[in-house]
Amino acid sequence: MSYEINHKIGVKASPEDAYQALTQPSRLAQWWTSDTRGDSRVGGTLEFWFGNFCQKFEVLELKPGELVRWKAAREGMEEWPGTEVSFALSSDAKQTSIRFRHSGWSENTPFHAHCSMKWATFMLSLKDLLEKGEGRPAPRDLAIDYF
Amino acid sequence: MSYEINHKIGVKASPEDAYQALTQPSRLAQWWTSDTRGDSRVGGTLEFWFGNFCQKFEVLELKPGELVRWKAAREGMEEWPGTEVSFALSSDAKQTSIRFRHSGWSENTPFHAHCSMKWATFMLSLKDLLEKGEGRPAPRDLAIDYF
Repeated sequence: MSYEINHKIGVKASPEDAYQALTQPSRLAQWWTSDTRGDSRVGGTLEFWFGNFCQKFEVLELKPGELVRWKAAREGMEEWPGTEVSFALSSDAKQTSIRFRHSGWSENTPFHAHCSMKWATFMLSLKDLLEKGEGRPAPRDLAIDYF
Repeated sequence: MSYEINHKIGVKASPEDAYQALTQPSRLAQWWTSDTRGDSRVGGTLEFWFGNFCQKFEVLELKPGELVRWKAAREGMEEWPGTEVSFALSSDAKQTSIRFRHSGWSENTPFHAHCSMKWATFMLSLKDLLEKGEGRPAPRDLAIDYF
């Protein structure tokens, strides 16, 4: 069995704006982590820095205004190597829907459940960025646990 | 295959306080939906009202300070009949962890992903209730979609 994280939010923004926020390092830096670097083209590697820790993703697939798909690198967050993250966009008269998926988890661990909550808070950050012009990227992200 | 929603948050509150917020209708009303009714004992039925819509759960299992487990009634939210919701509590010197699980979904639908996001916002509401004394229950809940 394989476990997934699935989230969906709706935003008052065009699919093009949402796609930019999911592909341009300078825009990713405004909702996930302030220190985002790398090459966001297919085959390129994106680097998400949290202090001294770096999570890398290979960009697997891009369809402008529709889909963004990454694969987690071998090094990085525990339990993440080989997992995939995707954002699928669709729109109607009322909103652009962003369907987030983080798939390929081998176990249903507390860390999986922690990441599910964290991704949800980053989806809210992305929504705020697109609708209000300001997200809440790390290190200003919402704390959901005490370490 | 069966799909699950898994979330985990940590709160600065005792397991007893968290357990109360997950069992007493008057406390459930302070973080999920303001109109919560019913019998929260094992075998009883809890009713969560959202305007004219009611979601019922049978209380399956209760372990004070540790576990709360419900089963969704046959009527109610689409895709929910027969699914189970549980809250498992554990604590250490730093926090009480609340492990939320909504299991038994037969498909990985957009509604499943919507509910995953909504549960995350209600977990944040529960955290605020326990830490700051005020949650954000429906109908004052955070909107994540436009209908």
